[in-house]
Amino acid sequence: MRAIVIEGRGGPETLVESELPDPVPADNEVLIKVAAAGVNRADIAQRQGVYPPPAGAPDWPGLEVSGTITALGGGVLDWSIGDEVCALLAGGGYASLAVARRGQLLPVPKGVQLADAAALPEAVATVWSNVFLLGKLRAGDTLLVHGGSSGIGTIAIQLARAFGCRVAVTAGSTRKLNACERLGADILIDYRRDDFVERMLAATDGRGADVILDAIGGSYVDRDIRCLARHGRLLLIGNQSGELARFSIGTLLSKCGSIHGTTLRSRPPEEKDDIIESVLENVWPLLEARLVTPVIQERMPLADARRAHELMQASAHIGKLLLLP
Amino acid sequence: MRAIVIEGRGGPETLVESELPDPVPADNEVLIKVAAAGVNRADIAQRQGVYPPPAGAPDWPGLEVSGTITALGGGVLDWSIGDEVCALLAGGGYASLAVARRGQLLPVPKGVQLADAAALPEAVATVWSNVFLLGKLRAGDTLLVHGGSSGIGTIAIQLARAFGCRVAVTAGSTRKLNACERLGADILIDYRRDDFVERMLAATDGRGADVILDAIGGSYVDRDIRCLARHGRLLLIGNQSGELARFSIGTLLSKCGSIHGTTLRSRPPEEKDDIIESVLENVWPLLEARLVTPVIQERMPLADARRAHELMQASAHIGKLLLLP
Repeated sequence: MRAIVIEGRGGPETLVESELPDPVPADNEVLIKVAAAGVNRADIAQRQGVYPPPAGAPDWPGLEVSGTITALGGGVLDWSIGDEVCALLAGGGYASLAVARRGQLLPVPKGVQLADAAALPEAVATVWSNVFLLGKLRAGDTLLVHGGSSGIGTIAIQLARAFGCRVAVTAGSTRKLNACERLGADILIDYRRDDFVERMLAATDGRGADVILDAIGGSYVDRDIRCLARHGRLLLIGNQSGELARFSIGTLLSKCGSIHGTTLRSRPPEEKDDIIESVLENVWPLLEARLVTPVIQERMPLADARRAHELMQASAHIGKLLLLP
Repeated sequence: MRAIVIEGRGGPETLVESELPDPVPADNEVLIKVAAAGVNRADIAQRQGVYPPPAGAPDWPGLEVSGTITALGGGVLDWSIGDEVCALLAGGGYASLAVARRGQLLPVPKGVQLADAAALPEAVATVWSNVFLLGKLRAGDTLLVHGGSSGIGTIAIQLARAFGCRVAVTAGSTRKLNACERLGADILIDYRRDDFVERMLAATDGRGADVILDAIGGSYVDRDIRCLARHGRLLLIGNQSGELARFSIGTLLSKCGSIHGTTLRSRPPEEKDDIIESVLENVWPLLEARLVTPVIQERMPLADARRAHELMQASAHIGKLLLLP
């Protein structure tokens, strides 16, 4: 099969198209003929050598795909050859074939194109498991999403709106904020011009955000806590701007606030299966009702993986980048 | 009535015995003839001027008392004059009379002396609401308590043991660690000699603590996270060693860990009522079964409040200090 492998570690030039043996599904796995692979920031971190794949995962990148099942491993009774699916992977999505665990398969939602479904697994599972399962966002709550125009941000805005919540976003340009507004965001904060703590407190009569979804980390953490509501939940899912967080203990205590950190990829397969099951039950109906739709910046050939990484590192995209073998 | 008031702000010398008008219970309050008042570190912070009483609370110190009900405000149907109780207060416990909110009263547990019951409300409510309600400590889990010989620590050890958990403690002397061991602690760490991260990981085969109760703060926070188990919960209840916390975001993410901050005093009365109700249901039976007993360093006259604060600031005590009017 064709795949994009990482030769060495460093810039986009380390992504090289290559021929690899076709993978074989083990028990409780299926083989997927890939229609599209989603591109994630974690792929860039893996390319740079700072986010190695978990034990047992393929060492070429790609955390999500959509496509058609072409072979079944032992014990897979609930899926058939020919089924159109999307799937969460521990790695190996940048390829014409990929193996996925049965528990991490999802049907392509009605009304979503097969390739476009590759935009869903990572973003939906990340937002659902953090904002809703851990963060317990409820109707009437206010959610703050940093990077509202990212793949994760565009899903978070729509999901929170579908559940009757008010949504605030930060982004780095008027173009991105306009996109967030079209998706339903209520409070639009240009982080290059405005202080998000001041803006959040002003927009909520000093109350702050009930839930904050933050992939930025670094100096954002202390500021997040300062604009958290009483009993607010800060969900850290990345450290794009820095690995060291600091915060005022007194502020967290006086708000009875909490900070939760998660990664999806390194979780044991059973935990991911549970998340996918909950996503299927709670989010898939919203996708099929068109209350939530994948936002896709560009569908590009698999061979353009370098350009996809360059685009993502330049942060010029809105929504997801897909690679089509 | 007699009371200890704070004149100015600063050292123990600002505590002055004084005559104040007798307080009058409002609706849903009772008047208590105080048998004893518990001394807490929060009282010291209040004396130093860094922890002002919440709006509406008396401005003399004291967050818990035991005693006998001598008058009922309107609407109090479930308590009678003459009942022996202990109570959580928002302030005003260092006095011969104190007013308590109905929802924050507890009966004196059978088998506990009236005065000694003053050692219970703050420590039990703090441990129960943090370690069990928020931290969801379960049988088989490992709890790490910093300051195991403190008023809070001595209750945390006994409660966690009663629920079938393994308990690790840090303390600053062999004498204190021996006291913790007698209460049921399994892993004894002298923080002056040993690194608690190394000791915790070694004692749990690298797994770490499921729940950590930390009133120390400061540089402990990053170290707490390093010895937290997967899905572990760090409960911050103070900042004795420093107000600024730092931590590695990557470490928290890779463990799917969480950090929760709370204070008891500043919570709205309704939240405290709920905690007290849960304490009555879940902890009071363990006190009456003698599975948990208050640990009291010294019962001293109310007039000795200065000496009580000096003792607590010297950290020479094991368990609670009580002031008896």
